[in-house]
Amino acid sequence: MEDDVFDVVVIGAGPVGMTVAARVVRGGLSAAVVEDRLAGGECEYYGCIPSKALLWPMELAAEVGRMPGLQLRGPIDAAAVLARRDETVSHRNDDHEVQAIEKLPATFVRGHGRLAGPRRVEVASSDGGVGTLRARHAVVVATGSTPAVPDVPGLAAAHPWTNQEATSVQRVPQRLAVIGAGPVACEMSQALHSLGARETTMLVRGERLLAAMEPFAGDLVARSFRESGIDVRFGRSVTRVERPVPGGPVTLHTGRGEQIVADEILVGAGRRPGVDDIGLDTVGVRVDGPIQVDGSLRATAVAEGWLYAVGDVNGRNLLTHMGKYQARVCGDVIAARAAGARDDGPALRATADDRGAPQVVFTEPQVSMVGRTESRARADGFTVRTVEYDVGDVAGAMVRGVGFSGRAKLVVDADRRVVLGGTFVAPDTADMLHSVTIAVNAEVPLDQLWHAVPPFPTVSEIWLRLLEQYGL
Amino acid sequence: MEDDVFDVVVIGAGPVGMTVAARVVRGGLSAAVVEDRLAGGECEYYGCIPSKALLWPMELAAEVGRMPGLQLRGPIDAAAVLARRDETVSHRNDDHEVQAIEKLPATFVRGHGRLAGPRRVEVASSDGGVGTLRARHAVVVATGSTPAVPDVPGLAAAHPWTNQEATSVQRVPQRLAVIGAGPVACEMSQALHSLGARETTMLVRGERLLAAMEPFAGDLVARSFRESGIDVRFGRSVTRVERPVPGGPVTLHTGRGEQIVADEILVGAGRRPGVDDIGLDTVGVRVDGPIQVDGSLRATAVAEGWLYAVGDVNGRNLLTHMGKYQARVCGDVIAARAAGARDDGPALRATADDRGAPQVVFTEPQVSMVGRTESRARADGFTVRTVEYDVGDVAGAMVRGVGFSGRAKLVVDADRRVVLGGTFVAPDTADMLHSVTIAVNAEVPLDQLWHAVPPFPTVSEIWLRLLEQYGL
Repeated sequence: MEDDVFDVVVIGAGPVGMTVAARVVRGGLSAAVVEDRLAGGECEYYGCIPSKALLWPMELAAEVGRMPGLQLRGPIDAAAVLARRDETVSHRNDDHEVQAIEKLPATFVRGHGRLAGPRRVEVASSDGGVGTLRARHAVVVATGSTPAVPDVPGLAAAHPWTNQEATSVQRVPQRLAVIGAGPVACEMSQALHSLGARETTMLVRGERLLAAMEPFAGDLVARSFRESGIDVRFGRSVTRVERPVPGGPVTLHTGRGEQIVADEILVGAGRRPGVDDIGLDTVGVRVDGPIQVDGSLRATAVAEGWLYAVGDVNGRNLLTHMGKYQARVCGDVIAARAAGARDDGPALRATADDRGAPQVVFTEPQVSMVGRTESRARADGFTVRTVEYDVGDVAGAMVRGVGFSGRAKLVVDADRRVVLGGTFVAPDTADMLHSVTIAVNAEVPLDQLWHAVPPFPTVSEIWLRLLEQYGL
Repeated sequence: MEDDVFDVVVIGAGPVGMTVAARVVRGGLSAAVVEDRLAGGECEYYGCIPSKALLWPMELAAEVGRMPGLQLRGPIDAAAVLARRDETVSHRNDDHEVQAIEKLPATFVRGHGRLAGPRRVEVASSDGGVGTLRARHAVVVATGSTPAVPDVPGLAAAHPWTNQEATSVQRVPQRLAVIGAGPVACEMSQALHSLGARETTMLVRGERLLAAMEPFAGDLVARSFRESGIDVRFGRSVTRVERPVPGGPVTLHTGRGEQIVADEILVGAGRRPGVDDIGLDTVGVRVDGPIQVDGSLRATAVAEGWLYAVGDVNGRNLLTHMGKYQARVCGDVIAARAAGARDDGPALRATADDRGAPQVVFTEPQVSMVGRTESRARADGFTVRTVEYDVGDVAGAMVRGVGFSGRAKLVVDADRRVVLGGTFVAPDTADMLHSVTIAVNAEVPLDQLWHAVPPFPTVSEIWLRLLEQYGL
């Protein structure tokens, strides 16, 4: 069997791999995309999309609860929400995504892709056949990541849920135990609780939810969780798990001697880069962690420069939108290099990765942040000044109901008077964040931000209050 | 009676006058604020605040209607909404605003303020007394505007509602006839319709709602209005109005021979600057329109430079937030000039007035725009390129319910590759707008906006799609 030759071979047809293909094709190159699972990726079927489909009803119900004059007929209809969730994930059929790849046009190859020496990718299909793809210019690894399960005795054998099972839930467990405190643990705890997991217990090793963010973010989320009846317990490490009957009740033991009995366990404890069994050893790349890349997403371990890694697998920012961003940079840089053009234009370095990625946790309240937290900015050596303001104190919050509240913070480089980061914790802040993202990435000086007037009465007026606090 | 002397005398204690006072006091000056109506102004009691309190329930109800799994118990409870509206306007008691002025600290003077020659303001109080205030440095006119009522036979005699009566509605009329097509007419038509005005008829002289905005904005709003049962009629001029019995039914005749019978008429047909009876003639300022000012808000007709005019009364941008913005500039410039400091710093010119003010129409869908429309940009001589995208085609819209849709447009200066304006028409866009406002006012180049990554899945991803459309 002869090798199929393409300009670019992409391993992985998640949102990131698909975006690389789109950009290189747009740049005049041919591309093949290899995937053995669903084209569209984890995000589309088991991540961002279904989780948000499960979360928005809860958010809206909370907004209704704050608004005099509106009343819901009853609790959220979980069956209807799950049915809508199934629609948003196209019932886990990837025909439309395969067609999208073919329409680029690019070649979709169904099978497990594995590097087999420089610029070669072997594809093992499910019928046992093996083909080889050869890349003239570049191979791009976009294999994403998989959920990590902590090494707790009995945990793996108890078949805990990860984001995959949680987002594809068909029967909501009445009793849910959650290990973790990050975005996935927080989002899915609240989603499942809102859909019927009446006894939801979060076991958090540290003393805070969302520990990588500004401290008030986790505090406000924990307060909201507790008010809604989620049992949040800090300082708990799970020492042992028992599930004597498969599918039956599970018992978690904590270091404090507690026993929690639940119907399911959800683990949200970080992710492992998808570097296993993709042949990295055949090209001399170490495989015990993410693939190291430079600002153009090129793997630093491959001297010839034909290997790239984008998205979760490079460990830079484990967020779909950042992976897609890297994919745009990567695709364009491959096309530029293939054409012998300059490869250092403004679009050809993933600078936003370093400034701090935007991130939204779609809990109630929503946590929206971008750039550096205060502690990160101090650690990075900036002269930091911060300002904070209560969201509930702007008129735009008052008109949105009784008790619409939260907190906002900006982290400012006092030397250059530019915003290094911002965090908004309040309902419905996800789409407010892009204002801060632009300010951070374009380094818009405070004195110019002062002339960007928020409309009255909106929650965006928080911008004005924060700048006034700074002294403008 | 001796004159009371202050550094600055402000005529008008609306949000604009109060902000001027706050800024000059912050700058080390003394200030008096004169007002015969409610401190806090039209916006707080009869404008932005109560209108939004009446509109958000309708917006939320529409969101619930799009969300499988949620159902409202019944129609909006108008009585509860009106009660909440009364809370948001503090039951029209201005004690808290008077206290806010006194806490600055500044002096609040209750009475009708009228210029009486250079730097002098006479105040007539309701008990018939007259005092005089003298300003060492500046007098600031912040008297706002009043609703205009078109010169239609019988209209004034029929006592039509303006924003004042509409926002303070106690009994929602079953049959409402609306004259006008601007933001007030659109917002109050939909608010009152949602609260029980089942027969709402809009009589629009032209062929479009919101005619000053991008054409698709009015089109989408009109479609939504019609789908919800509002009778929108274009090309209708009202020629005659009859209300034989005061408070009884009213009949409107149109140029096409139609007769519309209604319980109330709402007029939203623009506003007149508040220049009457404030003594402008005593200082040589023409009074047949807005007070002309320069970029520092100084009245151009007064050579000595002690008179300023901020907010609606200067006609620059009839929006509360722009008035407050001008007030910050004006207050700071007065303080700088009083101190003999430079008066041309970055915060001392109202540049945002000229770039195009942000504006939100809180209808369903919300219309959020800032900067120049395409036609305005072309008229201003720019090399214009525009991009548009359907909001419903981003993943962030899909997860917010069935039929969450709309349209977005950016107007770009193709020579300099900066955004001149943007319009988002979709539910809940009010707080998305500030991203465009920053881009427009700071003139952030497209190549930098490209690195501002919208989080996935949010509606903000429209930014990515628009930039892709542009060719990035």
